[in-house]
Amino acid sequence: MDEPERTILDATYRALCEHGYADLTMQRIADESTLSKAAIHYHYDSKEHLFEQFLEYLYDRYTDRLDGATGASARDRLDALLTVQLADEAADPGIDFQTAMLEVRAQAPYDEAIQETLSAFDEALVARLRETIADGVDAGEFDERVDPDLAADLLTTAIKGAHTRQVAVRHPLDRSYEAARTYVDAYLVGEDAAEVSA
Amino acid sequence: MDEPERTILDATYRALCEHGYADLTMQRIADESTLSKAAIHYHYDSKEHLFEQFLEYLYDRYTDRLDGATGASARDRLDALLTVQLADEAADPGIDFQTAMLEVRAQAPYDEAIQETLSAFDEALVARLRETIADGVDAGEFDERVDPDLAADLLTTAIKGAHTRQVAVRHPLDRSYEAARTYVDAYLVGEDAAEVSA
Repeated sequence: MDEPERTILDATYRALCEHGYADLTMQRIADESTLSKAAIHYHYDSKEHLFEQFLEYLYDRYTDRLDGATGASARDRLDALLTVQLADEAADPGIDFQTAMLEVRAQAPYDEAIQETLSAFDEALVARLRETIADGVDAGEFDERVDPDLAADLLTTAIKGAHTRQVAVRHPLDRSYEAARTYVDAYLVGEDAAEVSA
Repeated sequence: MDEPERTILDATYRALCEHGYADLTMQRIADESTLSKAAIHYHYDSKEHLFEQFLEYLYDRYTDRLDGATGASARDRLDALLTVQLADEAADPGIDFQTAMLEVRAQAPYDEAIQETLSAFDEALVARLRETIADGVDAGEFDERVDPDLAADLLTTAIKGAHTRQVAVRHPLDRSYEAARTYVDAYLVGEDAAEVSA
């Protein structure tokens, strides 16, 4: 990515957090950057084109963050994934960003390009959760009766729901994190696996 | 509620499913009813006022559906609540309605009246799940180690996430239902409780 493009996409991020998706304009993106509106139009011929590129850029950042969720054991890696999604305040994009992203999600049924990129986000999270849980089952860290597909699906759904509730009804994210952690501790790790590792 | 008001709110429901929240207008509501736009304005002075009343009307329908989730045991009642939320195709408001409701949820941070009503929906669901799970723990149907507060929170978050994923990335609702059911069977009912009832 060229330097002006990175500048524009970073400015798009700030404009999105400040104004929301419905009120995002090329002028507001220019106002958040050192570039003129004309200069932005030189790089991106339309707001739609810019926004598609912006979602791809967010996708790269998102998968980088998921890839950064490492740990010695599968359980550590699963905890790291939950932290990245629900509790990492330093990396947390914050409620302004989640508010804008909920607007984008609500727009997806009306815009195929947006829906495709959001599906890629969803699948990236599901895939990492599933791999991590399957690794844990194979290693005897998690209960052997756990189905990695269904457990990954439930955790993905809970993470998306946590972001929706945070924005729509101000449900505290740390409460959703605690509920998800309790699920992992009690159901995935379980009694049998705890005895194995004890 | 007067007959004309019920007619208007039913028409609002149909117009919302057809056009989405962003494109909901008094004219489109009139087009779905037997009343003129002027007649609708006689009952509701503004679209905002009509929509607030509409959300209250939806709330009553929602709590009626939750109250209809009955069963002989706590586990039956919990299954009935999950079915009402995720799998009752006859009563299911359908994806057009969920699409519009996701737009409404995305609007909540910008509109206090909407946020308040959505919070009441959220709390109604949490309260019924919590009561049902607590009843099941007390009756020995569910594992005594289950925390009804956290389990109700996780299920509420999963239900909201299921609706978000259904709309935003076309994730199948029956898949989310299966994942939630597996959670109930494996974690809430658990091995110990299964042995007790066996």
